[in-house]
Amino acid sequence: MATARDLQFHAALSQAATAVEEALDKLLPPVGTPLADAMRHGTLSGGKRLRAFLVLESAGLFRVPKPQAIRAAAAVECIHAYSLIHDDLPAMDDDDMRRGQPTVHKLWDEATAILAGDALQSLAFEILAAPQTAPDPLIRTRLMLRLAQAAGAGGMVAGQALDIAAETAAAPLDFEQVAQLQALKTGALIGWSCEAGAILGKSDVSNLVKFAAELGLAFQIQDDILDVTAEASDMGKATHKDGAAGKATFVSLLGLEGARKKARDLVSTACDTLSPYGSAAENLRLAAEFAISRNN
Amino acid sequence: MATARDLQFHAALSQAATAVEEALDKLLPPVGTPLADAMRHGTLSGGKRLRAFLVLESAGLFRVPKPQAIRAAAAVECIHAYSLIHDDLPAMDDDDMRRGQPTVHKLWDEATAILAGDALQSLAFEILAAPQTAPDPLIRTRLMLRLAQAAGAGGMVAGQALDIAAETAAAPLDFEQVAQLQALKTGALIGWSCEAGAILGKSDVSNLVKFAAELGLAFQIQDDILDVTAEASDMGKATHKDGAAGKATFVSLLGLEGARKKARDLVSTACDTLSPYGSAAENLRLAAEFAISRNN
Repeated sequence: MATARDLQFHAALSQAATAVEEALDKLLPPVGTPLADAMRHGTLSGGKRLRAFLVLESAGLFRVPKPQAIRAAAAVECIHAYSLIHDDLPAMDDDDMRRGQPTVHKLWDEATAILAGDALQSLAFEILAAPQTAPDPLIRTRLMLRLAQAAGAGGMVAGQALDIAAETAAAPLDFEQVAQLQALKTGALIGWSCEAGAILGKSDVSNLVKFAAELGLAFQIQDDILDVTAEASDMGKATHKDGAAGKATFVSLLGLEGARKKARDLVSTACDTLSPYGSAAENLRLAAEFAISRNN
Repeated sequence: MATARDLQFHAALSQAATAVEEALDKLLPPVGTPLADAMRHGTLSGGKRLRAFLVLESAGLFRVPKPQAIRAAAAVECIHAYSLIHDDLPAMDDDDMRRGQPTVHKLWDEATAILAGDALQSLAFEILAAPQTAPDPLIRTRLMLRLAQAAGAGGMVAGQALDIAAETAAAPLDFEQVAQLQALKTGALIGWSCEAGAILGKSDVSNLVKFAAELGLAFQIQDDILDVTAEASDMGKATHKDGAAGKATFVSLLGLEGARKKARDLVSTACDTLSPYGSAAENLRLAAEFAISRNN
């Protein structure tokens, strides 16, 4: 049963989703070509919008004007959407469904999916480079430098490459290796999302970077738990894939109960990390609790 | 037989290639992982380095410090390399050879090729966002905004999508449509390369944008001419592909002699466009002449 805190979190998440989707609808190219339509499908077809929420909440800690935070949120959702479109390709994870709908390469074709992902990455930087994101160009260059690092060969793409390599590795990865892989694959963008608010607010990023690392790992552990315990109909995508593939996951490494305890500990630490921000960070604490209470 | 002007151009091109390859060698991730090795192969295995040359020469018109211009040149070569890696994929142009060597997905696999391209796009923005590219952050944001526009759904990627669509279109494209397709597919990055020098030099970009459009079209017409007249051994890649595929090219639209005349006219106009810069633009004029004199 949903608690009052669950409801408060979902209200804030839903507000963030509405705000970022309205912005994305205007920032994406208009409907009418396969490329534009594929970009729009990959970006606007649902999703939790956790990254957008984290940008908006972290920006809120520093009283960043909302329109600026929303543009940063839109940028990271473009990067996230591009990575999902490419990850779903037959040469990568080969997924036909995403968020309960056919993936971009199923609705169009592989070439269009590759190009739509490529164009979404460009769009993320196009959004951040424009003066509307922050009047001070130094802030924009910082946002872009950190996003490029988080997205590229030292971040998200490196994580995806490690994930692919792990599938054919002689021995399964150990806990540190899986944690490192996930810190790159999903943690880097979650980190940027939390950091972006502090960059926009010209403030120290270190607390939010630490919070993001704890949150990201908790999220990923719960993903592995749900891959074992949830049904495909709840997740909107195939489940039981990782176990079937003999892949090292946090559940295979720690056991189901060990994974649950590890995730709980991380959430507790993450909430402590936010103490300097007091009650202004309450929605971020709710997000950390949600990371492990969710069932999809 | 090579003329003195040909030799002068090749010396300048070769200097630009050496400078940008030295920079790329340091900016790319070090060898040792499939992702890094694939990125390095896709970026460092030859190529004319025309885009790097155009950045360095346009920057030279405005006395931009060489290290800054070289970083901008490295960034556009990363975008160019990513686009070739993705274009060569089986789902796109399906090319096994590039610059006389196996393509990235042949040497590694499709997943690695997709990821290497993705990471190279991030790297381009990472390079431009760093203070070493220009001390003034406003200049860096301008370079990035224009590069994102040139590379994305309003530029290069749109051109590639149109190119794919043209293959299955009911009727072949007309001259204007082919010119528009090429202006996006290759012209946008050539345009950025010429514009970058003026942005770095805080100068008006309009002449260089015009020059780039004329140069880019002349280059593409010559590519179509060479696809008909050259041998694969000269080009380092498959030739006679477009004619065999029944694709509209400048040669199919204008005839071989008509295409040659159109290219000559464009080069003449392009050289006139450079007149405000006097002899400082001599290497750019040589590039325009080379666009149509080259045989590969």
